[in-house]
Amino acid sequence: MAIVVHKYGGSSVGNADRIRTVARRVVASKEAGNQVVVVVSAMGDTTDDLTNLAFEISPVPPARELDMLLSAGERISIALLSMAIIDFGHDAISFTGSQAGIVTDTSHGKARIVEVRARRIIESLEAGKIVIVAGFQGVSTDYEITTLGRGASDTTAVALAAALSADVCDIYTDVDGVFTADPRLVPGARKLHAVSYEEMLEMAATGARVLALRSVEYARNYGVVIHVRSSFNEGEGTFVVEEDERMEKALISGVTHDTSEAMIRIRRVPDRPGVAARIFGEIATENVNVDMIVQNVSEDGHTDLSFTIPKDDLSRAEKIIEKMAREVGAEGFSADSDIAKVSLVGAGMKSHPGVAAGMFQVLAEAGINIEMISTSSIRISVVVRAAEVESAVKVVHERFDIPNEAAKREEHSE
Amino acid sequence: MAIVVHKYGGSSVGNADRIRTVARRVVASKEAGNQVVVVVSAMGDTTDDLTNLAFEISPVPPARELDMLLSAGERISIALLSMAIIDFGHDAISFTGSQAGIVTDTSHGKARIVEVRARRIIESLEAGKIVIVAGFQGVSTDYEITTLGRGASDTTAVALAAALSADVCDIYTDVDGVFTADPRLVPGARKLHAVSYEEMLEMAATGARVLALRSVEYARNYGVVIHVRSSFNEGEGTFVVEEDERMEKALISGVTHDTSEAMIRIRRVPDRPGVAARIFGEIATENVNVDMIVQNVSEDGHTDLSFTIPKDDLSRAEKIIEKMAREVGAEGFSADSDIAKVSLVGAGMKSHPGVAAGMFQVLAEAGINIEMISTSSIRISVVVRAAEVESAVKVVHERFDIPNEAAKREEHSE
Repeated sequence: MAIVVHKYGGSSVGNADRIRTVARRVVASKEAGNQVVVVVSAMGDTTDDLTNLAFEISPVPPARELDMLLSAGERISIALLSMAIIDFGHDAISFTGSQAGIVTDTSHGKARIVEVRARRIIESLEAGKIVIVAGFQGVSTDYEITTLGRGASDTTAVALAAALSADVCDIYTDVDGVFTADPRLVPGARKLHAVSYEEMLEMAATGARVLALRSVEYARNYGVVIHVRSSFNEGEGTFVVEEDERMEKALISGVTHDTSEAMIRIRRVPDRPGVAARIFGEIATENVNVDMIVQNVSEDGHTDLSFTIPKDDLSRAEKIIEKMAREVGAEGFSADSDIAKVSLVGAGMKSHPGVAAGMFQVLAEAGINIEMISTSSIRISVVVRAAEVESAVKVVHERFDIPNEAAKREEHSE
Repeated sequence: MAIVVHKYGGSSVGNADRIRTVARRVVASKEAGNQVVVVVSAMGDTTDDLTNLAFEISPVPPARELDMLLSAGERISIALLSMAIIDFGHDAISFTGSQAGIVTDTSHGKARIVEVRARRIIESLEAGKIVIVAGFQGVSTDYEITTLGRGASDTTAVALAAALSADVCDIYTDVDGVFTADPRLVPGARKLHAVSYEEMLEMAATGARVLALRSVEYARNYGVVIHVRSSFNEGEGTFVVEEDERMEKALISGVTHDTSEAMIRIRRVPDRPGVAARIFGEIATENVNVDMIVQNVSEDGHTDLSFTIPKDDLSRAEKIIEKMAREVGAEGFSADSDIAKVSLVGAGMKSHPGVAAGMFQVLAEAGINIEMISTSSIRISVVVRAAEVESAVKVVHERFDIPNEAAKREEHSE
């Protein structure tokens, strides 16, 4: 009998009707002969509502108590989903993160899973039950309730799939799968049949919102097959799997974009060892996530240092950057929120050196100026003006003929 | 240093402002030099709202899943109260029923506490923290989440007070204490300074809604001093304590009334051994709580059997009673929802045989017909027409001069 893990997000369980719809799908999977474990998020906006309540009480809610508060959300959705399944005549049991054996470290609000003790889940599956598990939460090695951070129900699902050696981890979403570009921007974008962990990591990191980054890391580390698919239809979605030789033949898997970041430029930083470490060390202590970093070769002992950070953190970061720019003797700094990042991701890039040049060329032909460039072995990211993001995604997508590339890959992987 | 347990109900923590008000009172108790443990219920109507959600999903929500669902409510209130206290500059920590060591039996929805493992609470108190505990919930000996039934946050508070050998268990309510009668019915009713466990049990069982019956039983069994007091002012309320010789001098502690019951009369039941056992056994299997039972001496081998049950259970009970009346060969039965129960409670009654007669006399003088009578050693209950409940309570209260009796008791117990 196959073990499958399903994961449903907050909007999929947003009210009683939707919970019944999810229950029907879960029951169908069970009736098809599977042992089924279901991970659910809190209903609709519950987590946001509880967070707002906390901030009504305290400007800085303590992290431990915030975790206690937020973990109530999934407790509600798991109990209701379990009731709906039982009402359909199947046996089900709900478990909190703690009961499901999701053991984490002690970092409240962003805890990492250190171990999954799945004994109770396994016993319940063997007793013929459908098991419902609260996503997003666990219990720490200090016996405290922890949460794993936004989007972390994906991670719960993948961790359980790993611990149970599940055949597949089905992540149900409101889209049909992983696309070669955002279909709202590029009507010609098409669904990928399969994508490697490395590519999915790069795509998640550069703006594809379909999977939480950490869940992909976890899946890669444990070899969990993720199936990203629609909760509205029965069609196949996108499989996230180990890269294999057939995939290599595909050059590009997608174009992603991200408009949530701002660009900082510190001008004429003295080019001495340790200066960058000091600046970014200081920013890190404020918990600001720095994304792209670009530093040019210096002229006359000075260099410009550019990087991107989340727009939400900009006002906090500016204070530190102003101080650091002064301390290291830079000329000054500027911040620019009006930018977008466009990335081209593909495992095949590794053996095709012309990809970057092709991307730059097509952007130049479209009159789009590139303000920053950063690359990995399977990704090229550029920063452009925010107003030009749509046309940038379009021309890059077209230049690499991604629909056909994706089709080629699909043939190979079947 | 004294250990005190506070308990606040759902309306006391109904919104952010009220939670801050509770936090201020808790902090004041801590600053007065106490070690403070606080038990809270779910905010406002949370438990009702969650229950309604469950019934939207399933006509018969499974008890285990219902407990999982409902236990989310206190998780929210404990976290928020803890945040508010920390925001006031004191150290606090919230615990679920399970974390607080409230171990129960496995009866979901009405679990009984079998043990309190207060290690984490004691450690936190010793570390100088204010401890906030979720009322109404525990963890069963099977490691399942349980709830203890409506009003059971009182029981949680008393159980913790017993386990911690607390000096007092302060139950904060929206009234000033326990009154000699409902002040809305009897303007001359006055607050009792102290009342014995036995009297409080009789009062709780006959309509005084100020304390849950089981919490008083628990307090009696473990000798916990309960202080019922107002959450709106600082005044002293009513102490529920062990009966002592000074109390004996007080004749009557109060008049209670209850309009939530219906009266059933089974006519001409054959007077054979085992008939009553059969009838009430059958009713019990339907989980209907029978309160007063009256059976007269039989004439010509038949007797009338009368009893009261909650109005809410009437339609369910009628089906069984109809069947049982037929089976035992009774003439028939009637049900009457238009009744009220009026009770006179007082430990002093034991040594004053004239109390019952006095009560019947004053009711007769007021032209109030008595339809049923039932007594214990410290209580007399009568059933009257619902329309006459107010005047019945008034004349009985006046006849026994309860304000003065209560004043006498107060002098003695100081």
